[in-house]
Amino acid sequence: MKLLRDKVQQDGIVLSNQVLKVDSFLNHQMDPVLMQEIGKEFASRFAAENITKVLTIESSGIAPAIMTALEIKVPLIFARKQKSLTLRDDIFTEKVYSFTKQETNEITVSKKFMDASDHVLIIDDFLANGEAAFGLARVVEQAGASVAGIGIAIEKAFQPGGAKLKEAGYRLESLVRIAGLEDGEVQFAEADEVVTP
Amino acid sequence: MKLLRDKVQQDGIVLSNQVLKVDSFLNHQMDPVLMQEIGKEFASRFAAENITKVLTIESSGIAPAIMTALEIKVPLIFARKQKSLTLRDDIFTEKVYSFTKQETNEITVSKKFMDASDHVLIIDDFLANGEAAFGLARVVEQAGASVAGIGIAIEKAFQPGGAKLKEAGYRLESLVRIAGLEDGEVQFAEADEVVTP
Repeated sequence: MKLLRDKVQQDGIVLSNQVLKVDSFLNHQMDPVLMQEIGKEFASRFAAENITKVLTIESSGIAPAIMTALEIKVPLIFARKQKSLTLRDDIFTEKVYSFTKQETNEITVSKKFMDASDHVLIIDDFLANGEAAFGLARVVEQAGASVAGIGIAIEKAFQPGGAKLKEAGYRLESLVRIAGLEDGEVQFAEADEVVTP
Repeated sequence: MKLLRDKVQQDGIVLSNQVLKVDSFLNHQMDPVLMQEIGKEFASRFAAENITKVLTIESSGIAPAIMTALEIKVPLIFARKQKSLTLRDDIFTEKVYSFTKQETNEITVSKKFMDASDHVLIIDDFLANGEAAFGLARVVEQAGASVAGIGIAIEKAFQPGGAKLKEAGYRLESLVRIAGLEDGEVQFAEADEVVTP
């Protein structure tokens, strides 16, 4: 997606070979028009799927996901993240490890809002190791629902999440794929040379 | 705002005299069309203000706030919430106490994204004691910026936040005001009898 790629090129800050900072437009300050375009792009890529719900995880997934849900005209559910949890039988829970924060969180979705009739599109802002995406997919499967696909704004393609998700059989659509962050610069993956306008 | 009020009436669940559950359309599962209408309503109410930024706090403020920012065509900043914080000089921080969770969080906004030239609209999903709204307003004032106003989806008008914010001189626009939650039912405040369609 050219618009997002240009934004990464212009405003992304390479902090190290592993870390790209995009807090000026994606995950602290957000450009609402860019979010709307991201929503339209995901809706268009998954237009052939009969999606009934969009699912994301708090917090930075919410803006792109609500725009996607608005385009598809289905509800958005955002999974809550908490450090520890008292056992409850009205929620689906999955453990998700964060490599960035080096901690495990429980993610939760109320059982009221997802069942076997649902076909769910998972949306998130970043994909690195795939822990969050796999956790969300496991929640969908716990509900007996099906995963329509996984839509990611920025994939760090030099980390293993994308390959693992595809290997597990999920359809993955990443709007921008980053091949590396060497020498303080963003290297985009080849697949992005063929960009949607 | 009639649409939101009808939704509260139909789908809100009164858990106690203090607690209204709206997780089916506002703060866990979200209705994106309702969020868009909320965004339009806030944009319209504050149309006379020359707003440069919308500010909210993660997580459930993000969806109504990004829709408001989209209507006004300005960036959204969402304040991050964390339990404890290592001292850093590149962020504004304020302490916010949550009566619901009985814990104090640090809320943070990067200094890069707000300065004295900004006129900021604060948006949140709920208003009860006003701790979050006051915390966000203090962040704006730390930046030397001005608060254009505070837009709230649902105000629990039987709790002191609204009165305290008005007393402090802030312009407060609540789309739905709840006078009480007695006998398992939602009592709406009189001001809502004159509703916008």
